[in-house]
Amino acid sequence: MATIDDILSAIDSGQKAALDRLFAFLSIPSISAVPAHFPDCERAADWLVTELADLGFEATKRPSAGRPMVVGHIKAARREAPNVLFYGHYDVQPVDPLNLWRNPPFDPKLEAGAQGEQIVARGACDDKGQLMTFLEACRAFKQFGGPPCHVTALFEGEEETGSPSLPAFLAENAKELKADIALVCDTGMWDRSTPAITIALRGIGSEEVVLTGANRDLHSGLYGGLAVNPIHVLSRILGELHDDTGAVAIPNFYDGVEELPQEIADQWHELNFDAAAFLGEVGLTTPAGERDRSPLEILWSRPTCEVNGIVGGYTGEGTKTVLPAKASAKITFRLVSKQNPERVAQAFRAFVTSRLPPDVKAEFIGHGGSPAISLPIKNQALRLARRALEAEWGKPAALIGSGGSIPIVGSFKRELSMDSLLVGFALDDDRVHSPNEKYERASFHKGARSWARILAALAA
Amino acid sequence: MATIDDILSAIDSGQKAALDRLFAFLSIPSISAVPAHFPDCERAADWLVTELADLGFEATKRPSAGRPMVVGHIKAARREAPNVLFYGHYDVQPVDPLNLWRNPPFDPKLEAGAQGEQIVARGACDDKGQLMTFLEACRAFKQFGGPPCHVTALFEGEEETGSPSLPAFLAENAKELKADIALVCDTGMWDRSTPAITIALRGIGSEEVVLTGANRDLHSGLYGGLAVNPIHVLSRILGELHDDTGAVAIPNFYDGVEELPQEIADQWHELNFDAAAFLGEVGLTTPAGERDRSPLEILWSRPTCEVNGIVGGYTGEGTKTVLPAKASAKITFRLVSKQNPERVAQAFRAFVTSRLPPDVKAEFIGHGGSPAISLPIKNQALRLARRALEAEWGKPAALIGSGGSIPIVGSFKRELSMDSLLVGFALDDDRVHSPNEKYERASFHKGARSWARILAALAA
Repeated sequence: MATIDDILSAIDSGQKAALDRLFAFLSIPSISAVPAHFPDCERAADWLVTELADLGFEATKRPSAGRPMVVGHIKAARREAPNVLFYGHYDVQPVDPLNLWRNPPFDPKLEAGAQGEQIVARGACDDKGQLMTFLEACRAFKQFGGPPCHVTALFEGEEETGSPSLPAFLAENAKELKADIALVCDTGMWDRSTPAITIALRGIGSEEVVLTGANRDLHSGLYGGLAVNPIHVLSRILGELHDDTGAVAIPNFYDGVEELPQEIADQWHELNFDAAAFLGEVGLTTPAGERDRSPLEILWSRPTCEVNGIVGGYTGEGTKTVLPAKASAKITFRLVSKQNPERVAQAFRAFVTSRLPPDVKAEFIGHGGSPAISLPIKNQALRLARRALEAEWGKPAALIGSGGSIPIVGSFKRELSMDSLLVGFALDDDRVHSPNEKYERASFHKGARSWARILAALAA
Repeated sequence: MATIDDILSAIDSGQKAALDRLFAFLSIPSISAVPAHFPDCERAADWLVTELADLGFEATKRPSAGRPMVVGHIKAARREAPNVLFYGHYDVQPVDPLNLWRNPPFDPKLEAGAQGEQIVARGACDDKGQLMTFLEACRAFKQFGGPPCHVTALFEGEEETGSPSLPAFLAENAKELKADIALVCDTGMWDRSTPAITIALRGIGSEEVVLTGANRDLHSGLYGGLAVNPIHVLSRILGELHDDTGAVAIPNFYDGVEELPQEIADQWHELNFDAAAFLGEVGLTTPAGERDRSPLEILWSRPTCEVNGIVGGYTGEGTKTVLPAKASAKITFRLVSKQNPERVAQAFRAFVTSRLPPDVKAEFIGHGGSPAISLPIKNQALRLARRALEAEWGKPAALIGSGGSIPIVGSFKRELSMDSLLVGFALDDDRVHSPNEKYERASFHKGARSWARILAALAA
């Protein structure tokens, strides 16, 4: 019987080949938000099916209402071994603004970074690199008779667009997918040397609003002053979304928001989060948002309302004296505690509608949502994984929150009554969703080692 | 010696060939705001040089800091005939949104309209169609020994981008270009059967503002709430540009704005402007803007501040959870009376700058401007032209204002101490600057006849 050291040695000696596999995966431009890239999403799913089959999984691509799912199963030698469901996503964010990339986003490069080599590409971290840490752990186990747990792999291709097809897929395949615990790898380290397990995730709500005034674009000289300008109306409404203290001004928005339990608040306080460094890394100096809250609270346990995009009228080069017929904005809400995504969307729509002047119509497009989620601190898998991570990294794993949303975790809870163990190796400076996204080569390597240890610990 | 009826008959019998010439001109996509179309601007200038030469003008294309000027001269037979400078522009507005055009914008079509045939193309009205009414009048005179006035033709290619090169060109060529009066054809009729002479033009100021927060786009989950969002800041500032009465809220914006003289106010009152019909034609019901002003006052003699375009963050399909680094807006001001474009720009910049939170920087790009202008009612050319228009149309020409700006009129006044006679045949529903821009075939035909009568009247 192989020891954990045998498995870790296999990972260490297979690094070059592991990198080649990741690069092949990263070269597929599987952007789920853009229909032109739907065929690439299919290719990414096919690539995973092949990869899983090579690892000994029984793997298939499954249709959904949107991008396909990939499901694979492999049994442990020991029948009474625990069942784990490993989740990841093969889709990636759009790449614009493209001109800010040093290299084409789907031509992965290994670059020298200040702290070691970096893998640079769209999806290098989120989520292809993270996902592959788990598959590389499975590959090492394969040399010694397969993984110590029964593993189901579930990969989706719509995480970056709100996972619209996943809840139904989980419900329809509940029996096949249900496990003792879900393993989710879409989160980060506390810092470069401290592993972390994420126990609180903000939820998300996503709304798009299109305001229409006149029935066509008008000349701003011939109509200006007399005809309503939808950009003015939209600006005024968006400008009123936050009050002077940085709080969201939508009535009933904070319904269901709870104060942090003292135990968690104390642990977060001890993390000594350096907000100045966090903001300084992106060129900022001053925390925005709610004035009476600490930075970690704002990022992990307070709700937000962010305008992600706005457009109206002429946006090309030079100037155009147009009074536009339309203006639109895309907004996302980060949700906490018991905030309900649908009620937040309704409150937002009421907020906008109540502020419309005569002749301006609003159309709303919902892009899905999910409530916030948390893992109980006493959970057994959490306890075992924390010890496994300490063995790999030499320090206890921090129990942290995350500002980002992973809707699947809520779906696992709702559809399969299953908790999720959130372990990932992303770093704050990985430029996730931004140009020149990267993943540390060390994250990739030690991530695979960490999963090997966690699988062994869960099976012990 | 030819009579005016000979000239008018020549115009009537040459309509088909006149239309062919206009279509050839309209097929050149001379969009001055877009650098990719600069070669097309050159082609449009060359086309005019050839056309002028064919009409007996001594014509040349002249370089400027931007798009070239076209200048042509032709002498009247009678030495003591008056000197007129005819001005037009060969550049056109951008065509987006392209998908709203029934036909390609530079593939001119003759379409049946409710009131007769219409010429549909970008520039059909503004300003290629209008400009050609004058050249077609010159063509009719050519058959009978040439025009009755000494004519200088001046065509520019930057009117739609604020005429940045014209003031210097006028100053450098003042002696060559100075005339007794400038004839400018970039204006409209009062209604379909009532000609008009425009005696008051609003000025313009044009500003672009780019706000920058973080040094790159951020993930709105990982940074949202803590990192400043430039879209929020821009929305709030733009939303404060107008107060609750519809007035512009920028301090000192109204400096130099004068109340309308009673004589003009009375004449405008008598025009019985139908604001409901004017707005109804574009799908609106309710006048926006300053609440205590009449609609015609708002359009012709009150200043405005309009956001012509806004963009920031993700504006593609679907959703993207980005917290953008930048957001920007393009703004134009319509100016009246003695408002100074530079002081208005300064006041706007101060308004924005004073509202910036920490970490947000504003960059301003000025796109030029010009003050408002008016023609004294007692002007001799105005009196003669008004009578000529009455002969053609069977009613007195209305003396009107215009909400649009024609910077050249200010430049003629400042650089050449020359008044401008503003006569044009555009209609309110010509969709100037919008998709499916059109010019009535009747405007084109009777416009040429009108210029023939005006030239004859000025020379009499």
